[in-house]
Amino acid sequence: MLSVGLLGAGRIGQVHAVNIAGHTGSRLAAVSDVHEPAAQALADRFGASVATSDAILSDPNIDAVLIATSTDTHADLIEAATAAGKAVLCEKPVDLSLQRARACQATVASTGKPVMVGFNRRFDPNFSALQAAVAAREIGKPELLSITSFDPAPPPLAYVKVSGGLFRDMMIHDFDMANFIMGQAPVCVSAIASSIVDPQIGEAGDVDTAVVTLTYGDGRIAVIKNSRRAVYGYDQRVELLGSDGLLQAQNMLENTVVKSTTAGVTGAKPTYFFLERYMPAYAAEWSAFVAAAKSGSTPPVSLDDGVAALAMAEAAFQSWQTGGAVALSAV
Amino acid sequence: MLSVGLLGAGRIGQVHAVNIAGHTGSRLAAVSDVHEPAAQALADRFGASVATSDAILSDPNIDAVLIATSTDTHADLIEAATAAGKAVLCEKPVDLSLQRARACQATVASTGKPVMVGFNRRFDPNFSALQAAVAAREIGKPELLSITSFDPAPPPLAYVKVSGGLFRDMMIHDFDMANFIMGQAPVCVSAIASSIVDPQIGEAGDVDTAVVTLTYGDGRIAVIKNSRRAVYGYDQRVELLGSDGLLQAQNMLENTVVKSTTAGVTGAKPTYFFLERYMPAYAAEWSAFVAAAKSGSTPPVSLDDGVAALAMAEAAFQSWQTGGAVALSAV
Amino acid sequence: MLSVGLLGAGRIGQVHAVNIAGHTGSRLAAVSDVHEPAAQALADRFGASVATSDAILSDPNIDAVLIATSTDTHADLIEAATAAGKAVLCEKPVDLSLQRARACQATVASTGKPVMVGFNRRFDPNFSALQAAVAAREIGKPELLSITSFDPAPPPLAYVKVSGGLFRDMMIHDFDMANFIMGQAPVCVSAIASSIVDPQIGEAGDVDTAVVTLTYGDGRIAVIKNSRRAVYGYDQRVELLGSDGLLQAQNMLENTVVKSTTAGVTGAKPTYFFLERYMPAYAAEWSAFVAAAKSGSTPPVSLDDGVAALAMAEAAFQSWQTGGAVALSAV
Amino acid sequence: MLSVGLLGAGRIGQVHAVNIAGHTGSRLAAVSDVHEPAAQALADRFGASVATSDAILSDPNIDAVLIATSTDTHADLIEAATAAGKAVLCEKPVDLSLQRARACQATVASTGKPVMVGFNRRFDPNFSALQAAVAAREIGKPELLSITSFDPAPPPLAYVKVSGGLFRDMMIHDFDMANFIMGQAPVCVSAIASSIVDPQIGEAGDVDTAVVTLTYGDGRIAVIKNSRRAVYGYDQRVELLGSDGLLQAQNMLENTVVKSTTAGVTGAKPTYFFLERYMPAYAAEWSAFVAAAKSGSTPPVSLDDGVAALAMAEAAFQSWQTGGAVALSAV
Repeated sequence: MLSVGLLGAGRIGQVHAVNIAGHTGSRLAAVSDVHEPAAQALADRFGASVATSDAILSDPNIDAVLIATSTDTHADLIEAATAAGKAVLCEKPVDLSLQRARACQATVASTGKPVMVGFNRRFDPNFSALQAAVAAREIGKPELLSITSFDPAPPPLAYVKVSGGLFRDMMIHDFDMANFIMGQAPVCVSAIASSIVDPQIGEAGDVDTAVVTLTYGDGRIAVIKNSRRAVYGYDQRVELLGSDGLLQAQNMLENTVVKSTTAGVTGAKPTYFFLERYMPAYAAEWSAFVAAAKSGSTPPVSLDDGVAALAMAEAAFQSWQTGGAVALSAV
Repeated sequence: MLSVGLLGAGRIGQVHAVNIAGHTGSRLAAVSDVHEPAAQALADRFGASVATSDAILSDPNIDAVLIATSTDTHADLIEAATAAGKAVLCEKPVDLSLQRARACQATVASTGKPVMVGFNRRFDPNFSALQAAVAAREIGKPELLSITSFDPAPPPLAYVKVSGGLFRDMMIHDFDMANFIMGQAPVCVSAIASSIVDPQIGEAGDVDTAVVTLTYGDGRIAVIKNSRRAVYGYDQRVELLGSDGLLQAQNMLENTVVKSTTAGVTGAKPTYFFLERYMPAYAAEWSAFVAAAKSGSTPPVSLDDGVAALAMAEAAFQSWQTGGAVALSAV
Repeated sequence: MLSVGLLGAGRIGQVHAVNIAGHTGSRLAAVSDVHEPAAQALADRFGASVATSDAILSDPNIDAVLIATSTDTHADLIEAATAAGKAVLCEKPVDLSLQRARACQATVASTGKPVMVGFNRRFDPNFSALQAAVAAREIGKPELLSITSFDPAPPPLAYVKVSGGLFRDMMIHDFDMANFIMGQAPVCVSAIASSIVDPQIGEAGDVDTAVVTLTYGDGRIAVIKNSRRAVYGYDQRVELLGSDGLLQAQNMLENTVVKSTTAGVTGAKPTYFFLERYMPAYAAEWSAFVAAAKSGSTPPVSLDDGVAALAMAEAAFQSWQTGGAVALSAV
Repeated sequence: MLSVGLLGAGRIGQVHAVNIAGHTGSRLAAVSDVHEPAAQALADRFGASVATSDAILSDPNIDAVLIATSTDTHADLIEAATAAGKAVLCEKPVDLSLQRARACQATVASTGKPVMVGFNRRFDPNFSALQAAVAAREIGKPELLSITSFDPAPPPLAYVKVSGGLFRDMMIHDFDMANFIMGQAPVCVSAIASSIVDPQIGEAGDVDTAVVTLTYGDGRIAVIKNSRRAVYGYDQRVELLGSDGLLQAQNMLENTVVKSTTAGVTGAKPTYFFLERYMPAYAAEWSAFVAAAKSGSTPPVSLDDGVAALAMAEAAFQSWQTGGAVALSAV
């Protein structure tokens, strides 16, 4: 039974708490949050104790910590937790600064303690089935990858300003998805972007619509499309053309009801946002972490993966700013 | 080059004329119609001559006739045409009277001349692909067949009154489809029906909504559902459960455009009615007739098939009237 | 906080235990089972106590009981639990005997205590959305209902022999679904059935394939199709034709991945069986029960609903045996 | 009745001949081809005469010509035909050389005679319905366009070498589609490409896989993906994200049959190639040309459209060669 300390009792921390408690191999032992009443409410619900992060990290009865705090604390907590010998699952991103993330990566490497980064989409049943089919060579040699990733609505401007920008905040998931499916990082990144959804996002120095093209050493190409607004719901699709066929992972829908009238044939919308879409992914992610932590094996998403995606975000940002392609080796 | 006389220049005759002229192995030689200007207009368009039915049947240069006249003339014309040695393709039904159809069947049998009955749906690319998959045992042993067949809107009451009723006029196509897919006639027919779409149809002695169940000697079951009204278009689907899987032939849609908005995900309606849906089927039907006529082989839909479907309609009508199951051997 | 006693710790009891514990408004207080170790294991997992049914029913701290024991104990436990003043959620069916179920219904009526019957499919997000659309008159007047309900594989013969037969064991869900969507019971029931899937099922006095037609006083018609074997998975679909359109609830699929190759375009199968398909339905069912129990309002599925479905099963059984339609008022 | 001369009796000329003859408002008067027997065979089939191009252009009884000859003759024939006062429908492209096409455009402009360029995809029922929905503002302001256009298999290397390259030969259709849907030309073109399908295509100086990004003055973005090989068939899809929703035009399938087995749920492939997919588009294109020619109105696809698409191909080619974005104003 893995004894788990949860750092952060916000929205995503609550999702993780249910999975920790619901898993037959783990239990929620302690919860911390900068806002103590939030930690208390969550702890009460699952019979856990409330503690500070420091107390949790120094508690010898805690085997693992799940870091679901604000982004700016991730790298410090990863370093402290691994130094304390805990197994770590940390929400993405490692940090908004590639430099800081790389420093963390170096620090952690010396501990030999595994850190798993929360790229939850790898555990979505649709994307994981697609990746498994690719790995099984069901469509032969991969050639052209397309990732569509649209949020239902832009975040508040206040969030946009501290988010690190679309490439680091939103597309980072898609960079990791490209790495997950292609099995390696690209050589070069080209970004085109605009703020056509909301000019205020542009005025804040960010973009809301972007197309990033990735090229690989062997001629493969990947395209990632992001928009901050798809009014019909969370649009999360992946499509890969290979030498023997095409694989597509399509959206999850709210239900399977279809209505045919004189106005056409209408089905349900995609599930609204990430909590609806990726709830099964969070549970599968936790299971994978528990399995790795118990067996001592390498977790399926590493700190290196987190840093690799961040480097691609950095390259995309530079490409957008300069208007030219950016070699990944240059960031 | 098969030289063809077309008897009947109405709506369906015009469809056939295009296919006769467009086929590289046949030409439209002559057209007849009780309303001569209709024949003339059609003949002009394709460089054919206008003649009476009698003249066409006695013309030694005519190899084949396509009978697209009113139903009450079908049996007489089939008999006359086969007596005259022509290859015959006759629109369904052979006759509204089972007795008359059977007499025609007996008469024609003595000539040895093949007669093909126009059950066009057998040539629909979807239904023919489904039937081919069944024949290839792709889903193992057939067990439970479902046929959905809804018209977009009820015909005028005046038509209803002379139509022979839903079972003989509309469901006859579905009886033939059942025979086509199951490869044999059923043993027993049970009908349940009402006039819930339009009470006036009930007052006219007919029904507009019906469910007919067919049972087979080996335990297979088929269900046919008919409605005179599906406001979203012509709903023509077939579904067969077998020991190794399920086969479904779904509707053809007006186009493939899908619109996702806050109101849902909306696609196009099914094609509106039989001319839209079955246009490719009419062309394929004509090709099959030409191939059979030229090679002297048995046409793929025989007069026996036409009589068999009519007998099932008769049994369904009796079942509806009596409220009990009717053995096909009893009609 | 509703304090709940769970009677029965088998497969379905375990599903309910998770939902009871996971619901913010209920807690699992006690578990009973004829096989005590099963009760103990389940109780341990959720911090509940183990007790006998009698002890649970007489415990004044228990507010509600969930009956997930074997069918033959349902009616007795419903009577005892309502007599003890508990709110009751009982798995279907009330009893295999219509007489016994009706006696239970009469007994319970005198207590005034609400009993909810576990027709979980009413809480499936697809079927509940379809029913809501019907209730909102989105397709006008309902006219022709079709329910497809195929199990992935037949149960063991030993189970078949004690199951009460396909109509009472399997189709009872579909009878309730018809009542749920049509909003009333039918007038007449006609059944056609065979044992084409497995002759041994026929030799055991049961059927494995059945088509039941329901007729309503106003001319509406419903068709239910059952098969014990659909090798591709659990096939659970509902389709309703109305005066203004068609509503369909389609299958849930294992994932949304689609592979296009020279062999065709292949997607995932339907979820395999009821636990996979109806897991969200069980959770929603429990939420509805908790809400009703707390507010003292009538639960959304009543004991009357359970008896009504059983009466339809009895009528279908009689129809199959006699070969004629059976009026529901006659059973 | 529009009297039409057909220049070119090859594969695409034969498709046009059927549409010319089948249209109630046009007739095939004469056919020319450098290989005279091809012209003769086609003329015989539709009762047309055989003539040289010169004879057709100077025949006062010919109202219109359809140019379906080899690409290198298009510009000359357009100029000669307009000079001769004929209405002209010319297959794409106008020329492989942008300079020559622009010269032709200037020459023709002086005649005032309309020339329609055969961008048949604009008349595909799916793409035309999508464009109509965009024009009707059904998804609000267009923001992000995606065009997927994959051929089933690469052409022979010999063809590749004289084709003008993927951008001019294949993607030119997609450039026109972008212009059709976006309603204007882009400002800037960026191309990424490789020859991952077949290295020999790369050795021949061409590419077989390409992603081109188009940017517009107002922040809109378009992405075009091309591959010379999609083994499952002709993959032709368009998708547009707008402020109020998403529009998608999906593939046409060979039929609607779906098979569910233990191996999954399998439907038919997309139609194999352009003749299968775009047959209805060719007929609709011809109808539009006849309507414009008879009414004297501007044809729906102009010579300017042909030149615009060619300029985009030129820009894409330069972008691929230089590795940077190319302003359309610079080519």
